[in-house]
Amino acid sequence: MSLLMVGTMAFDALETPFGKVDRIVGGSGTYATWAASNFIKPIKEVSIIGGDFPQEEITQLQARGVEFEGVEVVPDGKSFFWSGRYHLDMNTRDTLVTELNVLAQFDPKIPGSYQDCEYVMLGNLAPSIQISVLKQMHKRPKFIIMDTMNFWMDIAMDELKTVLGMVDLLMVNDSEARQLSGEHSIVKAAKKIQAMGPKHVIIKKGEHGALLFHGDKIFSAPALPLEDVFDPTGAGDTFAGGFIGYLARIKDTSFESMKAAVIIGSAMASFCVEKFGPTRMKEINGADIDARVKEFVDLANFEIRN
Amino acid sequence: MSLLMVGTMAFDALETPFGKVDRIVGGSGTYATWAASNFIKPIKEVSIIGGDFPQEEITQLQARGVEFEGVEVVPDGKSFFWSGRYHLDMNTRDTLVTELNVLAQFDPKIPGSYQDCEYVMLGNLAPSIQISVLKQMHKRPKFIIMDTMNFWMDIAMDELKTVLGMVDLLMVNDSEARQLSGEHSIVKAAKKIQAMGPKHVIIKKGEHGALLFHGDKIFSAPALPLEDVFDPTGAGDTFAGGFIGYLARIKDTSFESMKAAVIIGSAMASFCVEKFGPTRMKEINGADIDARVKEFVDLANFEIRN
Repeated sequence: MSLLMVGTMAFDALETPFGKVDRIVGGSGTYATWAASNFIKPIKEVSIIGGDFPQEEITQLQARGVEFEGVEVVPDGKSFFWSGRYHLDMNTRDTLVTELNVLAQFDPKIPGSYQDCEYVMLGNLAPSIQISVLKQMHKRPKFIIMDTMNFWMDIAMDELKTVLGMVDLLMVNDSEARQLSGEHSIVKAAKKIQAMGPKHVIIKKGEHGALLFHGDKIFSAPALPLEDVFDPTGAGDTFAGGFIGYLARIKDTSFESMKAAVIIGSAMASFCVEKFGPTRMKEINGADIDARVKEFVDLANFEIRN
Repeated sequence: MSLLMVGTMAFDALETPFGKVDRIVGGSGTYATWAASNFIKPIKEVSIIGGDFPQEEITQLQARGVEFEGVEVVPDGKSFFWSGRYHLDMNTRDTLVTELNVLAQFDPKIPGSYQDCEYVMLGNLAPSIQISVLKQMHKRPKFIIMDTMNFWMDIAMDELKTVLGMVDLLMVNDSEARQLSGEHSIVKAAKKIQAMGPKHVIIKKGEHGALLFHGDKIFSAPALPLEDVFDPTGAGDTFAGGFIGYLARIKDTSFESMKAAVIIGSAMASFCVEKFGPTRMKEINGADIDARVKEFVDLANFEIRN
């Protein structure tokens, strides 16, 4: 049961109240793939990188079962670059620099060997690229999740609505859900978004956790209460990667399984924010993940006695 | 196992995006008592009211096992009055009028018949009044919880710190926790507050639920996702009343029991916001509460498969 992963593989420069890095590997595809690779292999990656993208990162990912046939390399091009600075509360950030570089010419080609993927994650990219990927699949995959952002709502709402009609699940943060739906109430927003296509909606609320909606069912997952968030970059992508990786592993998309997947995604995200970039993702093992998931059980579990 | 309840019994005028009421019964003691009376009797009330407080409200509460010997009646005085207007997001409100009336002369006298109370709730009042109540108890009650607000941090911080040293649990909202501790991180704030005295801290986050802290243990309770909050007035007091009423009923203050009590409090608060004032509190029965608690179980429950 392989996983098709579409997203950026890039460089970031990050500045948080705890320090800064000038150049660290990043991108939605990178984060989500590191997270998902704890649960499922192979992961069939679709992305575009420049000749500057480190071979070591590719080798590490390949060792975890990630396939690169669908990753276009532009030898004399530069990888996508983003630079941002977080405010003290870590909930808001300023984008300092966005250099599309090779991403500007991204026109993904899905290799024949990728056609067997039953689970698909469309990372945050132009809706036209997300559509192109899905149109290239000969058979409709079993479960497709997508991420997006306010930027695409501002400049490509029609195409975004087209993708929404093609996927099973949208995950966005609360402000994006409000913008997309025009509703302030998160419950109303989720209902409106479900009416746009995706039968499942996850609304991420940062330190307040995440809500999963499906029909009239709702699941509320806590975030791990942390004294400090060192670097929130990639937490959402890591959440998504843990979520879809776990679903692909257990081969089940019932609401009960999806609840568990939200907890797995939240656990992976709680590691991600502990160090700069995907650093922490490369250090943890299965025992670390099990222990962290157990923390979520203790955090959310209760029993009513009369 | 009786419960000592200290709080205001008052009138409110309320304006929300859904409507307005000019004069409805309110007050921290009223809300908390209605909620707690679903779980425990007797409730021994300590408050002060004017001759204008409706006898019908008193009769209704007495029928639910609430004792009024400790409620001072000032026949020619007026009950405390508060008027507020909620903004569209329901998270912020403007106080339009505060008339202390008889509350200005509140000097509670604890009757001898109240000395057997093992559970005590100190509603949001001047810290000097909270201290006076505790000093009048001949024997240290088994479990004392308190509420407070930013107003007392501004004008009576020393006395507030004295009460904090006398209680087992403080419940405040997130902005109050930040002001009291000087910490932005909720986890750090809870630790600092624990160091001030209360071994347990509950931080209420409105639509994002509540966190319970005890030592290094944390429990995260969701709020019920609602399409609309009709009137948030009294939700915090109702939460507190459900919490302490349930603890007094099961006669246990272990962390596991306290987790359940947070869920009970959250369920009671979710009823409170459905109509103006304590209206909804007077309508619901045990079956309604059981069904609502079941919604919380479904909302928060998950099981991880490998």
